[in-house]
Amino acid sequence: MELFGLKVFTLGGFGEIEAGDDLGGLIAEAAQSRLLDGDIVAVTSKIVSKAEGRVVAAVDREQAITDETVRVVASRAYPGGVTRIVENRQGLVMAAAGVDTSNAPDGVVLLLPVDPDSSARIICTALRERTGLRLGVLVTDTAGRPWREGQTDLAIGAAGFAVLDDLRGTADTSGRRLDVTVAAVADEIAAAADLVKGKTSGNPVAVVRGLGRLVGDLALPGARALQRPSDSDMFRLGTAEAGAEGYAEGYAEGYAAGFAAGRA
Amino acid sequence: MELFGLKVFTLGGFGEIEAGDDLGGLIAEAAQSRLLDGDIVAVTSKIVSKAEGRVVAAVDREQAITDETVRVVASRAYPGGVTRIVENRQGLVMAAAGVDTSNAPDGVVLLLPVDPDSSARIICTALRERTGLRLGVLVTDTAGRPWREGQTDLAIGAAGFAVLDDLRGTADTSGRRLDVTVAAVADEIAAAADLVKGKTSGNPVAVVRGLGRLVGDLALPGARALQRPSDSDMFRLGTAEAGAEGYAEGYAEGYAAGFAAGRA
Repeated sequence: MELFGLKVFTLGGFGEIEAGDDLGGLIAEAAQSRLLDGDIVAVTSKIVSKAEGRVVAAVDREQAITDETVRVVASRAYPGGVTRIVENRQGLVMAAAGVDTSNAPDGVVLLLPVDPDSSARIICTALRERTGLRLGVLVTDTAGRPWREGQTDLAIGAAGFAVLDDLRGTADTSGRRLDVTVAAVADEIAAAADLVKGKTSGNPVAVVRGLGRLVGDLALPGARALQRPSDSDMFRLGTAEAGAEGYAEGYAEGYAAGFAAGRA
Repeated sequence: MELFGLKVFTLGGFGEIEAGDDLGGLIAEAAQSRLLDGDIVAVTSKIVSKAEGRVVAAVDREQAITDETVRVVASRAYPGGVTRIVENRQGLVMAAAGVDTSNAPDGVVLLLPVDPDSSARIICTALRERTGLRLGVLVTDTAGRPWREGQTDLAIGAAGFAVLDDLRGTADTSGRRLDVTVAAVADEIAAAADLVKGKTSGNPVAVVRGLGRLVGDLALPGARALQRPSDSDMFRLGTAEAGAEGYAEGYAEGYAAGFAAGRA
């Protein structure tokens, strides 16, 4: 007997998404009668960017990364270029600010949606209206992580479900208070959805079923709530960048102290 | 019509796991006839630690963290203690070295398995022998991330399936080479499994079905392959720690230069 089950499946291809396309309508059509109350619909950010016309000419890619950057977190030269890990306008820390050349029409690169939480809310509202179902919507993108090889999908936009599952105060099976307090369920849902969407399969939308307990009001906090403010982040700068800042400060203070001692 | 589906379900409770318990056997019993060829079985590290007797007295928690630490990555004082983010003996960068007081028997804390990949291989071998099925096994634990709020589960041990899905050289839907090259599927599977296991439900094992394409030889690389070597990690030290190292170096060099200038 299954105590709990999760089901994740794709809705198939959507053809080429054009600027101005109504994603909520297209997803409702593709889903037909396959959506159920409590489903969470995970949408790859690329098709949201396309629908919102967030494209620039590929030749302007480096400039686009600069324009999308709020704060450089780390950068490293490689043969032929520089990898820039930055905090972007969406508040996400990502390589190349999330500017993406894959799955983009020829000659252009895709920028992330301006406000992925708003994008998710618009899609969720349209889907709820068309289906009459209590649904959640997740906008996903792919990113690397410190300390770990490979990339995973994470939640960059969300609407209609709890992105964090707060377990604080709940007891574990021994009645002891839990060390782990808040599960980033939206990121875990994005990861589960990526396992079926893949990167090349032309399946930009996945349905995650079995988490209806998380689905609720459209006014629930979006994926922004998953972003740790940089001032409370122990890794707000790359090791080399933080070291260089410390070195410059230390050199100036050391020079002054040394000069005074030399004069004495 | 579903183009691709993933199913994740728990096997229910296992009662209290004791040191020396045969997890492969217990999982096979709990699963009965529910496992299918190509399934990946995700096992919470806590029951692996219990079965391997990886417990110490709770009063020795701080010492245990020190003993499990290979390298301090970052630390921050909070009222009543210090959070230590460290690289542990398993090569994982985790708060408190992964030493865990939740879901542990009274008066003790759990250490992570000494070699989670070996633990996974032992469980996988036992499960394959008992069932005659081609299965994968994943050992999962929970950790925080830089830049993101909340915790997610990740893969600390793996056997019998590909932990990284290498998409390099594959083309996207436009025939363009993919930016994103390697998907950390083992971490994404761990995240999907956590969505059904939860933290408090007493469901330490989840079955992930639909990824048979990843399941293969027991000699495939384990979850160690997901650990980025610190010398190639742009975030191998916390911002404060890297800044302090840079400051000390800069101060010494600045002092020497200033002293010489002062003497001149």
